[in-house]
Amino acid sequence: MSCFSDTIGLYTDFYELTMAYGYFRKGRIGETAVFDYSFRTNPFQNGFTVYAGLRDLLEMLECFTYSSSDLEYLQSCGFPSDFLEYLRDFRFRGTIYSMEEGEVVFPGEPLMRVEGSLIETQLVESMLLNVLNFQSLVATKAFRVCQAAGSRLVSEFGLRRAQGLGAMMATRASVIGGADSTSNTLAAKKYGIQVSGTQAHSWIQSYDSELEAFMAYAEVHGSKTILLVDTYDTLHSGIPNAILTAKAMEERGEQLSGIRLDSGDLAYLSKKARKMLDDAGVPYVKIVASNQLNEYVIMSLLKEQNAPIDAFGVGTELVSAKPDAALDGVYKLAAVGNSPRMKISENVEKVTLPGEKCVMRFYDADGFFYRDGIFLEEECLSGEMVIHNPMFPGKQTDVSGLRFEHLLKPVYAEGKRLVDDKTLDEINGYLQERVALLPAEHRRFVRPHIYKVGISGKLLQLRTDLISSIHRS
Amino acid sequence: MSCFSDTIGLYTDFYELTMAYGYFRKGRIGETAVFDYSFRTNPFQNGFTVYAGLRDLLEMLECFTYSSSDLEYLQSCGFPSDFLEYLRDFRFRGTIYSMEEGEVVFPGEPLMRVEGSLIETQLVESMLLNVLNFQSLVATKAFRVCQAAGSRLVSEFGLRRAQGLGAMMATRASVIGGADSTSNTLAAKKYGIQVSGTQAHSWIQSYDSELEAFMAYAEVHGSKTILLVDTYDTLHSGIPNAILTAKAMEERGEQLSGIRLDSGDLAYLSKKARKMLDDAGVPYVKIVASNQLNEYVIMSLLKEQNAPIDAFGVGTELVSAKPDAALDGVYKLAAVGNSPRMKISENVEKVTLPGEKCVMRFYDADGFFYRDGIFLEEECLSGEMVIHNPMFPGKQTDVSGLRFEHLLKPVYAEGKRLVDDKTLDEINGYLQERVALLPAEHRRFVRPHIYKVGISGKLLQLRTDLISSIHRS
Repeated sequence: MSCFSDTIGLYTDFYELTMAYGYFRKGRIGETAVFDYSFRTNPFQNGFTVYAGLRDLLEMLECFTYSSSDLEYLQSCGFPSDFLEYLRDFRFRGTIYSMEEGEVVFPGEPLMRVEGSLIETQLVESMLLNVLNFQSLVATKAFRVCQAAGSRLVSEFGLRRAQGLGAMMATRASVIGGADSTSNTLAAKKYGIQVSGTQAHSWIQSYDSELEAFMAYAEVHGSKTILLVDTYDTLHSGIPNAILTAKAMEERGEQLSGIRLDSGDLAYLSKKARKMLDDAGVPYVKIVASNQLNEYVIMSLLKEQNAPIDAFGVGTELVSAKPDAALDGVYKLAAVGNSPRMKISENVEKVTLPGEKCVMRFYDADGFFYRDGIFLEEECLSGEMVIHNPMFPGKQTDVSGLRFEHLLKPVYAEGKRLVDDKTLDEINGYLQERVALLPAEHRRFVRPHIYKVGISGKLLQLRTDLISSIHRS
Repeated sequence: MSCFSDTIGLYTDFYELTMAYGYFRKGRIGETAVFDYSFRTNPFQNGFTVYAGLRDLLEMLECFTYSSSDLEYLQSCGFPSDFLEYLRDFRFRGTIYSMEEGEVVFPGEPLMRVEGSLIETQLVESMLLNVLNFQSLVATKAFRVCQAAGSRLVSEFGLRRAQGLGAMMATRASVIGGADSTSNTLAAKKYGIQVSGTQAHSWIQSYDSELEAFMAYAEVHGSKTILLVDTYDTLHSGIPNAILTAKAMEERGEQLSGIRLDSGDLAYLSKKARKMLDDAGVPYVKIVASNQLNEYVIMSLLKEQNAPIDAFGVGTELVSAKPDAALDGVYKLAAVGNSPRMKISENVEKVTLPGEKCVMRFYDADGFFYRDGIFLEEECLSGEMVIHNPMFPGKQTDVSGLRFEHLLKPVYAEGKRLVDDKTLDEINGYLQERVALLPAEHRRFVRPHIYKVGISGKLLQLRTDLISSIHRS
């Protein structure tokens, strides 16, 4: 069963097609455009967002074409045959500049710049937003969960509560954000992730007694065994039976790996369990906790209550990114041909930045991230450089002479990915490196300090001029 | 690009496979089991939940098999060759009883009963939960959104903010819940849904003036045209230009279909827009509103502020089912062979109902839904019938002599679906019929009255006996 055919040119909002047809009919096939992808608000009140989804998006772009069946469908929607012929040969042949996957990113800055024909840059909008918004959202959630868990292992357990087939990308993004393993076997295979999981309540219930169920599982799975101890009564049945199982395993030269608590008060039960296991002479048996966990519950368990939990299984709230559920990323036209374009909107936060732009990250004297600056691509980035607050331009910062780096790099051109494939561990490694360069006040779990993103004087002037010219016209 | 191979036997939590292997190794291949699917809480504080996802699930079950590549992967996970050979021939051959898709359902009652071998009923758990939980969640959200919108059209616009590939099922479920159309072109093709959408800000920005952009679009798309009026200034530019466009269209014998408001105060702007359009002699031009809508915003716009909006585009909050993001559905073992099984847990709300059960819906004298009752399959459903509150068994209701219907019907047997395919419109039609039979106090938008689901005396006794025997053992 495929949710997609091999061609995914229809994985798009219908208006991308009606607009594409409009450009086609109006003889604008040859015109070029520049679009920016950015978002407006960090999710979960975090101090930053983890940029994720790039690799999947680039792979999907290579398949963004139309099959005969797709074209028949579009014909039934009323598109004429000359446009369908155009789509039959459609390939995305534009150029994409992007931040690196795993980058620490901030609201208002372009994370990706897409250049190409007006039609091709328009058609890919919805898919691009679908992939990048969701994976960045979940990677950020995962980072927070793993930050709360500190050195403890985190396994992503969310398949059953994930948003349908979104489970696949949710697992990938969870690992980019820091999860150590997943229960989602297909995602583990597809993305090369460590897979984990042992038993459900049904295994225990399927035997006449809990002890029999534990013993049987341990006989089959040996030292990989983690026993679920809350099917009947955690303290009076589950843990005593787990200890008996551990003792029986010792006689075979094996060690029980762990127990899992999946209900009740996890702080109380984990402390009791730890003592019972230690007193019974099986201190090596680890304690895994699950059941409606999120970053706040984990933080409370570890920091406030000193719960002796060694690993967490985190499902629903991680993969569905509760309570935010979506990142508000947008894809906005910045130029047509060489002409910068912008949108004003009725809401000031929806005003866009015109022109072909680049993004620089400046470092302070201690080697930490200091400011991000958005400049026009044409600007000569040397000499005196000042960046302005985009909403309050009088607030400005002189970044002249500071070390900086370009964040947008070419990742796709001429129908092909330009970047080497990285493993998810490598992407997470990059994220960890970058987070370490972010001053601690922006990494703070609650009410982090706002990292400042400024725009250049020339970009500010261009925006002002365009608003004036629009209001004059 | 397929997110799945043609085989989806790996779309499962890894522990389903370790348990399946345990049953295999322990010689339990021939044993049978019964599992129930139910959920614990209505999402969005609604008075009921819309059951959705059945058709997709049954189709996926037919593909729940293992390819050679899948088996190689499982070999790399450590499973031995005899078990892999078993999986090579695996097909789900069990029997499934389910409520009808689109049914109005309530917490605690089995919506689906799965019977088959212990191994096959276990392996499909995660996929079953993934599909049914998500589609039921979004269908319920969509129902609420459409309830708020009343007779106005609702279009699902959420692809860009959906949870990755979850977009496909989100669209399907939205239409089951009542959405009239979607912007998601691939889902529209796959599921036979009306597709909709006209233009984005980028179309307007790509022209030198808004008026030129409007005129160009209308020339290409004629009477299908809906003009987005907030790119620069809704009242001073967008609507005046839309009126000029409508007048130009009239000269060609066409009518402008509508305008779309996508920012600003929708109540204020829609009233101003309506007056401007009417005063200009184009009262037929409809007003479409979008921008972070949900059921509460729509309700306020229509009921509190009398906003003259004709149609709503609803995206993010619909497809991501914000703020709940997940339905808490579970799949629990009820019997092994003929022996009823249950789980007690540390949380009373997680205690399960043992045995092979059926669900009856009783009608009151006026022909409305009155109570749902869960009975043991073996019970003779005639004569005196009393159902008890599952948490407070002393609270009981006599349902003797009331008209009732069985809600669980066979939908899958011997590797094949048993039910005819229904269109999504037919499923929504069934939902509307059923909702009309639900007393108004349960349909209420805020703080609905709780619909009662009871259990039979025999089921109550079985549960009590099993708890006692477990605590004795």
